[in-house]
Amino acid sequence: MSPSRDAIRATVENYVKSVASGTVDDVLALYAPGATVEDPVGTPVRATEAEIREFYGVVEPLAQTGEVITLKIAENNAAFVFRLVTHLGEQDLIMEVVDVMTFDDDARITSMRAFWSQEDMQTVPAS
Amino acid sequence: MSPSRDAIRATVENYVKSVASGTVDDVLALYAPGATVEDPVGTPVRATEAEIREFYGVVEPLAQTGEVITLKIAENNAAFVFRLVTHLGEQDLIMEVVDVMTFDDDARITSMRAFWSQEDMQTVPAS
Repeated sequence: MSPSRDAIRATVENYVKSVASGTVDDVLALYAPGATVEDPVGTPVRATEAEIREFYGVVEPLAQTGEVITLKIAENNAAFVFRLVTHLGEQDLIMEVVDVMTFDDDARITSMRAFWSQEDMQTVPAS
Repeated sequence: MSPSRDAIRATVENYVKSVASGTVDDVLALYAPGATVEDPVGTPVRATEAEIREFYGVVEPLAQTGEVITLKIAENNAAFVFRLVTHLGEQDLIMEVVDVMTFDDDARITSMRAFWSQEDMQTVPAS
């Protein structure tokens, strides 16, 4: 059975919130066992929990705020635009990304692919 | 060699314009031979030119305007949000979709997957 739209929406909102201001464990709890991460798309796929844990470990200490801008759901798939602002003292690094995810029956993430490049990051004076 | 970002951007802009107000041939010219179309994601993949031609033939006669809202490029992949407004007399049908595409070296589309559901369509009085 496909997960409900509300369950997928909750996982996506939780994901962006956890990436921005949660712990690596918060993020990992949203993933199903055996999940894969390709971020950005075109780079090697991370396919073990250790690799995925290492990946999110890099952003855990950063002071960030996150926001889901647009979310489209098709069966057990979602594509969404989100904005992540990293607060670096007097500057903010703003990053806007499209993530594509698949989900298992419990709305846990089974795969994540992130579409972005350097062009999608900009630095502005802290607001 | 990967296509340039500008070439991918041009194909995406052209695609949305052609879907909105071009002919089926305009749209098909943007696809590479052997391309696949999954629209919406979760439905059977169209894998022959005849199937893809039939698919776009349905929208060809409609009076539409289209706009790319957000475009993210990662190597020879793109994900973008676009809005398609279908003018139905006194009403407009507004549809917002996330498309994911892959491209060949000439920035022709090799696959398209569209993320949307009924929830992403709304009818409003014509503006």
